[in-house]
Amino acid sequence: MTYDIVIHNGTIVTVNPDFDIIEDGVVCIKDGVIQSVGKGEKGKTLPEAADTINADGGIIMPGLVNTHTHLAMSLFRGVADDLPLMTWLNDHIFPAELKFINPENVRLGALLSCAEMMLSGTTCCCDGYFFEDNTAQAVQEIGMRAILGQGVIDLPAPGVPNPDDNISHAVKYVEKWMGRTPLIQPSIFCHSPYTCSNATLKNAKAVALSLGLMFQIHAAETKWEYEPIESMHHETSIAYLDRIEVLDSKTLLVHAVWLDDDDISLIADSGATIAHNPESNMKLASGTAPVHQLLNAGITVGLGTDSCASNNDLDMFSEMDSMAKLHKVVSLDPAVMDAKTVLKSATIDGARAIGLEKEIGSIEVGKQADIIVINTDQPHLVPMYNPVSHIVYAVKGSDVRDAVIGGKCVVRDRELLTVDVGEIMKKVKGLM
Amino acid sequence: MTYDIVIHNGTIVTVNPDFDIIEDGVVCIKDGVIQSVGKGEKGKTLPEAADTINADGGIIMPGLVNTHTHLAMSLFRGVADDLPLMTWLNDHIFPAELKFINPENVRLGALLSCAEMMLSGTTCCCDGYFFEDNTAQAVQEIGMRAILGQGVIDLPAPGVPNPDDNISHAVKYVEKWMGRTPLIQPSIFCHSPYTCSNATLKNAKAVALSLGLMFQIHAAETKWEYEPIESMHHETSIAYLDRIEVLDSKTLLVHAVWLDDDDISLIADSGATIAHNPESNMKLASGTAPVHQLLNAGITVGLGTDSCASNNDLDMFSEMDSMAKLHKVVSLDPAVMDAKTVLKSATIDGARAIGLEKEIGSIEVGKQADIIVINTDQPHLVPMYNPVSHIVYAVKGSDVRDAVIGGKCVVRDRELLTVDVGEIMKKVKGLM
Repeated sequence: MTYDIVIHNGTIVTVNPDFDIIEDGVVCIKDGVIQSVGKGEKGKTLPEAADTINADGGIIMPGLVNTHTHLAMSLFRGVADDLPLMTWLNDHIFPAELKFINPENVRLGALLSCAEMMLSGTTCCCDGYFFEDNTAQAVQEIGMRAILGQGVIDLPAPGVPNPDDNISHAVKYVEKWMGRTPLIQPSIFCHSPYTCSNATLKNAKAVALSLGLMFQIHAAETKWEYEPIESMHHETSIAYLDRIEVLDSKTLLVHAVWLDDDDISLIADSGATIAHNPESNMKLASGTAPVHQLLNAGITVGLGTDSCASNNDLDMFSEMDSMAKLHKVVSLDPAVMDAKTVLKSATIDGARAIGLEKEIGSIEVGKQADIIVINTDQPHLVPMYNPVSHIVYAVKGSDVRDAVIGGKCVVRDRELLTVDVGEIMKKVKGLM
Repeated sequence: MTYDIVIHNGTIVTVNPDFDIIEDGVVCIKDGVIQSVGKGEKGKTLPEAADTINADGGIIMPGLVNTHTHLAMSLFRGVADDLPLMTWLNDHIFPAELKFINPENVRLGALLSCAEMMLSGTTCCCDGYFFEDNTAQAVQEIGMRAILGQGVIDLPAPGVPNPDDNISHAVKYVEKWMGRTPLIQPSIFCHSPYTCSNATLKNAKAVALSLGLMFQIHAAETKWEYEPIESMHHETSIAYLDRIEVLDSKTLLVHAVWLDDDDISLIADSGATIAHNPESNMKLASGTAPVHQLLNAGITVGLGTDSCASNNDLDMFSEMDSMAKLHKVVSLDPAVMDAKTVLKSATIDGARAIGLEKEIGSIEVGKQADIIVINTDQPHLVPMYNPVSHIVYAVKGSDVRDAVIGGKCVVRDRELLTVDVGEIMKKVKGLM
C-alpha cells in the first residue's frame, strides 16, 4: 500500500489505553485514518507514502482537543482585563459584541482563532456562540475538526433578536450542518441556567437528544451564580439541571467550579461530562473547579481555554501547565494532577467529553489522523527525561512544527497551509 | 552623533515612573546607554546609527529581570515531577547533583539556561548555586547581565566538600569577579535558615555587607520549613532572620510564601526585598505568597522563575501570566494583581529587588540599554487593544524577536548571536 502520509523519527506519545510511548516511532496514514503505529526498524526503508514527515527526533502526539471556546471572541482579546466580572461583562464585552458581532466578523474571528489553535497544536475544538453558521463556514474553510454549538439564550442576541426564535433558529442551523462535512458536528449551546428559562432548557435539550447532538451549557461557573438559581429554584445549578432532566452523557457542563458533594454525585450518576477551563477561571477569579474529586468520582474532564476575552489566548499547552500547577498549589499536594492525567484531559478525555473518543484523542490504528509534531531541538526543551512531563511543563504552543487533521497536513514547518493568515490578521486589525 | 543602535517603528512600553507608552517610538543607544526615548516624526529620517532595528509595529520594552534561578539546574529539567517535595529533593535532585554537578557541567547548564532566557526576553537574572565561578564564566561568554551568588550551606556541597570552608570559598569567588566585567556582580547565597547555622548566616551577611554585595536566601518557602525553625528558635523564619540582623535593603528573600502579619511588618521595616516565584510555588505545591499584602506594605517584589527543576522552564512571560492569574483566583478578586503591577515585578521592581533599579528595568535616558522587541504580527497577538495586558496575558517567550543587553544586540530575528546554541544543546544531550 502507498500511504498518504508517513510520520517517523520521533517519540510517539500515543495516549492509548496503555499509555504506550514508542521511541523512534512510525505512524502510517491513509484515507484520513491511522493505519499503523509502531517502532521504526533500523536499516529498514520507510513504507511508501505520498508525503513523509520526519519528526527529527521530536515528539509525535495526538492533536489537542479544546473542549470549550467561543471562536469569534478572538476579536475581544484583551479588550478589558483585571476588572470585576460584571463590570467586564456589562461595560466591555456586551458593548463590544453590539459593535462588532455580525456574520462576517464572526467568520473572521473564527478564522483567527482556528489559525491560532492549529499553530499551537489544537486540532479539534468545541465552540458555542451566535451566528454559528458563519463559524462553521470558517472552520470548514480552515480545515479544523469541531463541535459547533449555536447559542441559545432568553435575551435578544446577535442574529436572534427575538428570544422566542432561539430554539427554532438553532434547529435550522443544525439541520444545515448535520452530515455536511466529516470534520464538523453541529450542537446546541444553552448559555446558562440563569439566562435560559426552564422551558428553554428542556426544549433545547429535547431537540438535541432527538437529533443525537452534544448539548453544552455554562454551569456553576461563579459564586454569584448560586444566588439567582438558589432564590428561583431553592437548589444548586446542578441539582436544578438534573431535576429538569438536562443531565445525561450527551451534556457537556462548562466550568463546574462551584459544586458540592451532592452535585458531584448527580453529575457522576448522569454521565454528564465537564469542560474545565483553569486559566479563564483564574483570570476572572471564578474559583478552582474540584477536578481531583470529579476524576475520583469517575467523571470525564476535558480541558478547554474558554475564549480569548478571558484568557487571553487559546494555547492548550499553557492551559495544561496551568491545570497541573493550579490544582497542586490549591491542594498543597504536588502529587495531584500529574502530567499524565493532564495530558489525557487535553487529548483522549477531551475527546470523550465531547463524544468523539472513538474518532480522535489518541494515536491508535483505526482512529482519525489528528496528529501533531513537536520540535524538541530548542534550549527550553533540552534535556528531555520524560516526554509526558515535558509536554505539560515545558513544551509551548510555538513548538508545534506540524499538524495533521483528518489525514490532511494543515501546518508544516510552522506555516498554516489552508488559509492566508496574514490576510486574516490584516482584516482583523482593520476592524479596530 | 552616530548612535550604535536605533530601535524604531514600535510601541514603547517604557515602564518609567509615569508608565509612558509611546506609539511609533524611537530609542537611540550609544556606548551601552539609552541616549534618547521619543516619538518618531512622520517624514523625518531616523537618526544615524551603526545598526537600526525596525520593530515592524511590534512592542519595544525593557528586557525582563528574573530575580531567582539556579542556572546549572537546567540539566535537571523534568528529571522528576509530580512528587512530594522531600521525595523529589532526596530521591531525585540530590542524586542528580551528585552525578552531574562538576565545574564543566555547571558552565554548560548555565549556558543552556542563559540561551533559553535570552531567547525568551530575559536580559538579567539573579542566580545562586555552587561552582559559581563557572556560572560566571558562562554568563560572561554568552553576554547576559546577572547577579551571581555563590551558594553557602552547612552541608558538604559541590566544590565545597568541607562546610567549614563555605564562606572563605565564597569570598574567594567574590574577589575574583568584583568589578571584573560590567555585566556581572558577584553575590552570596545562603541556602536557607534551616541549612545554615546562626553563625554561618551572620558571618556570610557580614561579609556581604562589608563588600557591598546582594545577600540572597530562600526563606519561608514551605509549610514544613516552619517546624525546624520554630522548634530551634521558637519564632518564624523571618523573625529569626530579623533578630540575627540578616534583613536589610541588600537582602533578597526568595519565596516568602508562609508569612504572618508580623513577618510582613519586619520585612517592610528592614527594607529587604522579595523574589516571588509563582510557578515553582505552584508546581512544588509550596503555597501562594501574600504578594498583594507585601505590595500594600510597600515591599519590593520582583518576579522569578526558580530553576528548571521545579518549573520546568525559565520563561518570564509565562511567569507573568501565572503571577496575575494565581493571585486573582486565590483571592477570588479579578482586580488584584493587574497587568501593570505584574509587568513592573518583571522589570523595574525586579531590578529594584536585586539593587539594579538605577541601571536597568525601564526604558529611560541614562539607563543601560537592556531592551527587547516583540513580534506582534501573529494570530495569538491580534488584535492588540492594550500593550500592557497583551504582554502579561498573550505574549509568549517565543514572540521575542530581538534582544539588546548593555547596548549589544544579542538576539536578532530569534537567533542568539553570542554562542552556538546547537553545540550547547548537543553537549547537554550527550551527558544524559
